[in-house]
Amino acid sequence: MNLQGLNFIGNELSGIGDETFFAFDPLRNKQLAPAFFEAELSEVDWALDKAEEAFLETRAISVAKRAAFLREIARRLIDLGDELINRAMYETGLPEARLVGERTRAVNQILLFADLVGEGSWVEARIDTADPERVPMPKPDVRRMLRSLGPVAVFGAGNFPLAFSVAGGDTASALAAGNPVVITAHPAHPGTSELVAGAIVEAALETSMPEGVFSMLHGARHGIGFHLVCHPAVKAVGFTGSLAGGRALFDAAASRDTPIPVYAEMGSINPVFLLPGALRNRAAEIAKGFHQSVTLGVGQFCTKPGLVIAVEGEGLQRFIDEVVKLTDDYSPGTMLHSGIREAYESAVAGVEAKPGVDVLARSKTPPEESRTEAAGVFFGTKAAEFLADSDLSAEVFGPSTLLVTCRSREEVFWLAKTLEGHLTSTLHATEEDLRQFGDLVPILEEKVGRLVLNGFPTGVEVCHAMHHGGPYPATTDVRETSVGSAAIRRFARPVCYQDFPDTVLPVELRNSNSRGIWRLINGEFTRDDVGG
Amino acid sequence: MNLQGLNFIGNELSGIGDETFFAFDPLRNKQLAPAFFEAELSEVDWALDKAEEAFLETRAISVAKRAAFLREIARRLIDLGDELINRAMYETGLPEARLVGERTRAVNQILLFADLVGEGSWVEARIDTADPERVPMPKPDVRRMLRSLGPVAVFGAGNFPLAFSVAGGDTASALAAGNPVVITAHPAHPGTSELVAGAIVEAALETSMPEGVFSMLHGARHGIGFHLVCHPAVKAVGFTGSLAGGRALFDAAASRDTPIPVYAEMGSINPVFLLPGALRNRAAEIAKGFHQSVTLGVGQFCTKPGLVIAVEGEGLQRFIDEVVKLTDDYSPGTMLHSGIREAYESAVAGVEAKPGVDVLARSKTPPEESRTEAAGVFFGTKAAEFLADSDLSAEVFGPSTLLVTCRSREEVFWLAKTLEGHLTSTLHATEEDLRQFGDLVPILEEKVGRLVLNGFPTGVEVCHAMHHGGPYPATTDVRETSVGSAAIRRFARPVCYQDFPDTVLPVELRNSNSRGIWRLINGEFTRDDVGG
Repeated sequence: MNLQGLNFIGNELSGIGDETFFAFDPLRNKQLAPAFFEAELSEVDWALDKAEEAFLETRAISVAKRAAFLREIARRLIDLGDELINRAMYETGLPEARLVGERTRAVNQILLFADLVGEGSWVEARIDTADPERVPMPKPDVRRMLRSLGPVAVFGAGNFPLAFSVAGGDTASALAAGNPVVITAHPAHPGTSELVAGAIVEAALETSMPEGVFSMLHGARHGIGFHLVCHPAVKAVGFTGSLAGGRALFDAAASRDTPIPVYAEMGSINPVFLLPGALRNRAAEIAKGFHQSVTLGVGQFCTKPGLVIAVEGEGLQRFIDEVVKLTDDYSPGTMLHSGIREAYESAVAGVEAKPGVDVLARSKTPPEESRTEAAGVFFGTKAAEFLADSDLSAEVFGPSTLLVTCRSREEVFWLAKTLEGHLTSTLHATEEDLRQFGDLVPILEEKVGRLVLNGFPTGVEVCHAMHHGGPYPATTDVRETSVGSAAIRRFARPVCYQDFPDTVLPVELRNSNSRGIWRLINGEFTRDDVGG
Repeated sequence: MNLQGLNFIGNELSGIGDETFFAFDPLRNKQLAPAFFEAELSEVDWALDKAEEAFLETRAISVAKRAAFLREIARRLIDLGDELINRAMYETGLPEARLVGERTRAVNQILLFADLVGEGSWVEARIDTADPERVPMPKPDVRRMLRSLGPVAVFGAGNFPLAFSVAGGDTASALAAGNPVVITAHPAHPGTSELVAGAIVEAALETSMPEGVFSMLHGARHGIGFHLVCHPAVKAVGFTGSLAGGRALFDAAASRDTPIPVYAEMGSINPVFLLPGALRNRAAEIAKGFHQSVTLGVGQFCTKPGLVIAVEGEGLQRFIDEVVKLTDDYSPGTMLHSGIREAYESAVAGVEAKPGVDVLARSKTPPEESRTEAAGVFFGTKAAEFLADSDLSAEVFGPSTLLVTCRSREEVFWLAKTLEGHLTSTLHATEEDLRQFGDLVPILEEKVGRLVLNGFPTGVEVCHAMHHGGPYPATTDVRETSVGSAAIRRFARPVCYQDFPDTVLPVELRNSNSRGIWRLINGEFTRDDVGG
């Protein structure tokens, strides 16, 4: 491995600052070479100057070329092979199989956007043709489509070093929409980030994209991030991380002279409801899936179910017994870094200290600090206690979860109504449960972005219909998704052309539908030509 | 006329406060009866409690019923007949023909949304079907669509008492998306607002909509507006008005514990570019259309062209001479109220005092203050002066405009590049101009929401392809439009359903496409059933 520890300013490498930092192997408790150069503010400006300059050219590039750029990124990510997976394993403590799977996910995500851009209908072309004879006023010819928004600042997540990081969904969707991207690499996996950034820069060179279409900065300090978000050249921000971090960037962006959208996906506790019939029929099976979902990736998923709500009754004790057994037997897992482990330990201690909260189970094997390990914890409380203390609704990032037992259907509804915004909510229910608790669905629709039935929230499918978002504090923009093809819309804006001749219009809006895309012509969806 | 001066809290009338205010006839310079009761903060809360309560029911109401509600509003607006037009004339000083035309526009806008909701494809239904055999993980069934966002706060505009006010585009699109609306009536036309609100409430009763689906508050004081925007029940804000007002609401909404989107349309100066060939061929004709656009509605349009940029050369003098003549002859018009007139006088005096700015023409007939009149003013300056003073880029609300003469193509481009965000920009150009100045189009695409060729920006067509928006400071959300059918998207959000049985899914997402809407099924647009 030949890492250089430098920032990528377009195609140039740079490390002019005095400060450096190191990656850390959480499993082996040791620092990893090389030193990485923190970006200086002048390097942030440099990257954004390049991005701004590249923008007019980038947005004008043919969709075929843009798709080719994305495909070349995907190809080069695969080509990085074991080198990438090994470095990511060292930097995150995540196992090989998980990282190989995550790379596949990242690659497929990029290819999805390449296909989307190649197909072209995502631009939402709309055409209303003229009527010069209309009285009292002639009707103009009006056409609109989504166009690139401008340079996008991306902040990668620590928990998905491939699929939500340098070449993750935010970067892929922003590039697909025709925007330059400046990403701040997550300081917990700077080497993985360097490898991926190198692949993107090489793909840009290979496909003759304008220099500045992609830059990557190392920034363990918060100052870099704020400087980036407040820079006038930046037109939107993608962020995956903590509530505190996302809200701080949102506030900074809203206070700019020219405010910009911030798409911050900040996680949630993803309440799971276990309804009586489902518990009666499938308590042990649900317990297994639930425990697996809680502990997947050592609980470091934004969709981890951190809250499970059940009505007292037949089957609940079997569910509890099974989760207790699985938690007892759960071998502590290595967390991404010591900071996350400490936050987890502290949050778990906080929950444990709450009156009315019991530790129903905890991994029998004690976690080893030298391996940055965390134990599984299964908490239990009653609805009244839960409702009385909003601290119990806070996300605990790691392999713990809280069971809230309700004495009645009414308590379940009351609890549902008081929920904050979450990415997901899950129901385990029979058909009979759905009849009896059907009113729960409209309540939960108001609280979350995705409702899951008889499944588990972890494992966010990358597809057209996915919505990975939700009401605040799950995200800062309830209208948008960070996963799936609809994520591209975040980085585009409509532009409207009135009475433009065919030759001056973007190809997507011309009379002849040479791209064969779906368009709304005079209110009708069609792939026909105008007048055709 | 039998106005009561009360607030509409759902179906109830209320006037519990101590403070009242009166409408004012700007043409006759006299106060109009009756007194209107300012809403108290407790009335704001009351309206929002009703809206919140109505929401779950409102969003679940069938689209047929929702469309019927909108159609009934339209019918009742027409039924208000002369009573509405007369009161609006008294309150705004606008002429009858304009108000009759504006009512038609408002009615057609409401019917457009009724049709849109009735047709149903606006919900952007997306379905990805399951693949239980997929390895390594089965693929779930994932379906998503746009659902109602929640109670919407609307702030009507003063300059369009019908089309952008109580039953204007914001209200119509928010109701169409299934949300309750609480509107603050513009204090300059409270009687018009009362008549329209009465029609909406009666339409709601007639079509059995839940009480609280609509409320209207009188609020001449700013406190009401902030209280409304900061109320936890409010999920989005629509606003049409000044930059200062829109930004203040945006800032308030961004500082909430739970931030919400603010769609503020704040106007702009809508630069018009006159290119050499167009001036050579059509100088006098362009001048006529331009002057008409500047003075339409006494210049009180957010799309008024407040800036015209031309290259020195043949035809420019003819354009100037013609605009000078038309401005000389322009009879001062009555503005909406004395506050707007004073702001206009002050802004015009400010421009006049600028070094390097000449008054090329001014209405020969002096404006009469007792009739709240404003004179037309045609200013001229050079590119260097314009670029040196950002004050000259500020919107002047009223019948004035500023010509900036450029000595070269380069000056035109430089000026275009330094523009802020605007709603529109217009080019007058021959085919040859477009070849020579073609690079102007991509520059302007970054600056505005709508580009007009050889026309004028006033007269915003209500249609599917319209985009009435633009980069800040034209609006606070560059992604959205406040005119046209796409405006509905502002008041909806995606909700995703994973592995839900058909019977529990919203009708739009079921296997059988009983509504016949366009859906994206496994990446293909179709009106077929799933598997059909």
